[in-house]
Amino acid sequence: MLVLITYDVNTEDAAGRKRLRQIAKQCVNYGQRVQNSVFECLLDAAQCRMLQAKLCKIMDPEKDSLRFYYLGNRYENKIEHFGVKASYNPEDVLML
Amino acid sequence: MLVLITYDVNTEDAAGRKRLRQIAKQCVNYGQRVQNSVFECLLDAAQCRMLQAKLCKIMDPEKDSLRFYYLGNRYENKIEHFGVKASYNPEDVLML
Repeated sequence: MLVLITYDVNTEDAAGRKRLRQIAKQCVNYGQRVQNSVFECLLDAAQCRMLQAKLCKIMDPEKDSLRFYYLGNRYENKIEHFGVKASYNPEDVLML
Repeated sequence: MLVLITYDVNTEDAAGRKRLRQIAKQCVNYGQRVQNSVFECLLDAAQCRMLQAKLCKIMDPEKDSLRFYYLGNRYENKIEHFGVKASYNPEDVLML
């Protein structure tokens, strides 16, 4: 199923930027980064629980917000995009 | 239906921050801001087309990215949240 993960973190703060990089690193193992803090991951139920647990460990629950949206298996017609396409390079995440 | 709108804009730039405020102002008429650049709007098909047209006018298509996710009418079990709850005040948007 497609799981949309949105992550709100204060990136003016170095620790916040680090958490965003760590979140991104985990998410891109299962999908793609479509916006700076929006990830689309293809996961089965077990992978989803595992990824959730990992992300919850990385995030700061008193500062950050993490949301999961379950779009199911028939998601092709449920998404529309306008403007520039994301060109986030997973290598950036690994390098930083 | 619930429409999730995610907006990626460079907020280091004053013009980008202004566009984000304008996008937010339009979206909160139909729903709530759940993260800094994530909005959940309850829309019928006509409202959705209208809002899409408005947001596309506000955004800079060469710099920004705008995505719509259609979650349908049975969305209650399709969303999970972790961490701090959004406390975005719509008044902020009007004031700035």
